[in-house]
Amino acid sequence: MTSAESQDGEQESFTDFWEVDHVVNRLSDIRRSWRAANTSQFEYGVEGFPSRTKLAKVTEELSAVLFPLRLGPGHVRPHNEDEFVTKTLQIALSRLHSQLRLELTYALPGVTPDEIATQASAIVAKLSRALPQIRILLDTDIEAAFRGDPAARSVDEVLICYPSILAIIHYRLAHQLHQLGAPLVARIIAEIAHGRTGIDIHPGATIGEGFFIDHGTGVVIGETAIIGNNVRIYQGVTLGAKSFPTDQDGALVKAMPRHPVVEDNVVIYAGATILGRVTIGQGSEIGGNVWLAHDVPPNSRVLQAREQNQVLTPGLDVVVPLSAS
Amino acid sequence: MTSAESQDGEQESFTDFWEVDHVVNRLSDIRRSWRAANTSQFEYGVEGFPSRTKLAKVTEELSAVLFPLRLGPGHVRPHNEDEFVTKTLQIALSRLHSQLRLELTYALPGVTPDEIATQASAIVAKLSRALPQIRILLDTDIEAAFRGDPAARSVDEVLICYPSILAIIHYRLAHQLHQLGAPLVARIIAEIAHGRTGIDIHPGATIGEGFFIDHGTGVVIGETAIIGNNVRIYQGVTLGAKSFPTDQDGALVKAMPRHPVVEDNVVIYAGATILGRVTIGQGSEIGGNVWLAHDVPPNSRVLQAREQNQVLTPGLDVVVPLSAS
Amino acid sequence: MTSAESQDGEQESFTDFWEVDHVVNRLSDIRRSWRAANTSQFEYGVEGFPSRTKLAKVTEELSAVLFPLRLGPGHVRPHNEDEFVTKTLQIALSRLHSQLRLELTYALPGVTPDEIATQASAIVAKLSRALPQIRILLDTDIEAAFRGDPAARSVDEVLICYPSILAIIHYRLAHQLHQLGAPLVARIIAEIAHGRTGIDIHPGATIGEGFFIDHGTGVVIGETAIIGNNVRIYQGVTLGAKSFPTDQDGALVKAMPRHPVVEDNVVIYAGATILGRVTIGQGSEIGGNVWLAHDVPPNSRVLQAREQNQVLTPGLDVVVPLSAS
Repeated sequence: MTSAESQDGEQESFTDFWEVDHVVNRLSDIRRSWRAANTSQFEYGVEGFPSRTKLAKVTEELSAVLFPLRLGPGHVRPHNEDEFVTKTLQIALSRLHSQLRLELTYALPGVTPDEIATQASAIVAKLSRALPQIRILLDTDIEAAFRGDPAARSVDEVLICYPSILAIIHYRLAHQLHQLGAPLVARIIAEIAHGRTGIDIHPGATIGEGFFIDHGTGVVIGETAIIGNNVRIYQGVTLGAKSFPTDQDGALVKAMPRHPVVEDNVVIYAGATILGRVTIGQGSEIGGNVWLAHDVPPNSRVLQAREQNQVLTPGLDVVVPLSAS
Repeated sequence: MTSAESQDGEQESFTDFWEVDHVVNRLSDIRRSWRAANTSQFEYGVEGFPSRTKLAKVTEELSAVLFPLRLGPGHVRPHNEDEFVTKTLQIALSRLHSQLRLELTYALPGVTPDEIATQASAIVAKLSRALPQIRILLDTDIEAAFRGDPAARSVDEVLICYPSILAIIHYRLAHQLHQLGAPLVARIIAEIAHGRTGIDIHPGATIGEGFFIDHGTGVVIGETAIIGNNVRIYQGVTLGAKSFPTDQDGALVKAMPRHPVVEDNVVIYAGATILGRVTIGQGSEIGGNVWLAHDVPPNSRVLQAREQNQVLTPGLDVVVPLSAS
Repeated sequence: MTSAESQDGEQESFTDFWEVDHVVNRLSDIRRSWRAANTSQFEYGVEGFPSRTKLAKVTEELSAVLFPLRLGPGHVRPHNEDEFVTKTLQIALSRLHSQLRLELTYALPGVTPDEIATQASAIVAKLSRALPQIRILLDTDIEAAFRGDPAARSVDEVLICYPSILAIIHYRLAHQLHQLGAPLVARIIAEIAHGRTGIDIHPGATIGEGFFIDHGTGVVIGETAIIGNNVRIYQGVTLGAKSFPTDQDGALVKAMPRHPVVEDNVVIYAGATILGRVTIGQGSEIGGNVWLAHDVPPNSRVLQAREQNQVLTPGLDVVVPLSAS
């Protein structure tokens, strides 16, 4: 105990001075006004909200189900894998079911609890049946990472160390849940990965097999982006929207296609920003730090101007002695 | 227990081989020399230092005080909100008081413990009274996020999922503490948010209402930046300093205005870097990946050169077939 | 307990509907096929794999050993520092020994457990003896951060708040382990720092004294990069590889020098991407958002073209009124 913590009697008397009751009343007034002004749109908190902490458990458990020896706990060995997978899958799906019920209760205010439970169960069943296909897809992603990075020593190193793989596991689970009608649970799962890796993939995006993100910090892939097979992107790449159409009242039109289409076998280097519903043709390479808002034909290379001649052209790339500056 | 952990007797004998005592002595010598060379400047560790872990608790509790149903624990419901807020606020403020005493003890070595406690209490009181205004400001930030992102489905989704909101809650608390004379506690709170979101807002920065950061990873906002109302910025944007003036001895001049002023209704797209005490005039748009170090008049658009004609001009944006390269 | 969690009987009956057994069997089949196709290359999981959680403990303990008053627990005071350091170092080294045995068991399948333990112990001994030198290097890094950032108020603030310092502590430990023959444990330690700071430094990189990364999110430093003394880089800087040579079968040639050499006293501003085995000559400054893939002579400044004249030249930097666009 530090000396600062031992003076409890003194702190007691400070509490009045801090005007806690007054502040609590003011905060209560603000909440009341806010709710009065927002009744139609928001009904949060009455039944509770899906929990980030619990969904982090669910994704951890489903990751262990998909890769039991490598992402499961230390006691899992080849002889008890199936037993571990069965038990963990049951726990994960039940936990997910509870979270989905919270989302559906929130999203469908008029529906009975029984009907909510049934709808949530149908989503869980479809996710469960999709897990084998997700594992097959993830194997192609891991293989792509191993083949695409000269620093990778083994597939296991990739699976255990690479933030890209953590992000893609979360994305492939979240995308399934998004398609099955649970966009909020899906989004929370995506944000768990975003917080841990700096890679922000919206669950609505469509991504083919053999996808690899090297390093990854700062990558953003928007809700309506479509990515083909065997695409490789680097840290800081944005596949974003250029401008947002608004309706007659100035409100945003939601869910319109507004992010890039990236065809098969494209490579996009660090820091490139690609905006709008443009198509990057198959087999193309987009250089680092490029800002692109137009279509690119197949098998193109798009580079910053200064790289064209690989020499320092005054006016394109300026090198001056420091003493003269 | 793995086989590797069971061989304790063997490890015992390794300890001598690892020369622990020798290493401990060398480290002790290095600390002694370092302190001898730095006596005037640093008096750390005698009374302890503010704790990142404890300040993370404080900000978690204050976040729940500001948004009890949505950021508080699951058992909070409309009927027990005020009771929860009262109790949590008391705990959070007492905990903060202890941390502030550690900062002030460290910063004001000659001052008595009683005087330190009184000064810390005054800061706590002012922060407490500022909470209602902080909540009102945060509501404008959440509203801006909801209106600014076509992927947002509800205000609750924004509050619970968006890293931007987590970063701004931390910033608005930290900024208050910074203004009240607790820059170190403020900085630790800012770094908690930075670690969790990749968004680095210095507590000294000034930010108006309705502020929205989309995606956010890699955003940096410097100590003396001034941001107006209804500003929107994207991931990877830097509002930084261009060069640092030094005094006659070559030491940096601290705390000079050296970061941008961004006026009302400005939008800054992904990856733009704006450096120095320049002013971005109201209503302007700064395009992605631009590097800017000069003033921009109101209602301007600043874009990378290649976007001017929206066509591929050789020498500005190079597209060549891969086979020819 | 929420209403959603109380309906256990109902959930029981859902479990059949979720086809857990069927999914478990499919997943088992997929693992069996995958292993049949990958026998020669991968032998993971038989003895367990180094644990990210346990290595996070090791680095936390070693950080406290290096800076006991500032990064150790609150009860450490000048009079009990050595006692704390001795005990913590013994625990950390034993824990590290266990993790190294797992890596070596995995990497050297034919070797006996005794021989593995001896080799692991030799690595631990060398790391232990290197700690004083690591502390001396880290003091130069902390000093560089304090001198390089006008917002820093004290060396302690730097050590406790700056993500750069956390990343560099992890890097200097990981680099040592990488050189000593434990690249996987080293990589896991690097990824712990990457996850917490957004700074991705490969343990194979070589970095001189007085290294400072300001803000840091999005920084990537590749496996074969070489960085001199007193280098300063900002957030979003990449020192990466340009293209990857492949052998006759199209497989990547691993571990070739392919990342930049950055000489002494270089500064690289936010968002610059430097690719390939190029040399940035001593004393040079690389401007923000530049994309560089060629050598730069000593004492140069490399800037984006638009900054050359500090005016807005049409075709290089476009400013148009919003109403006209």
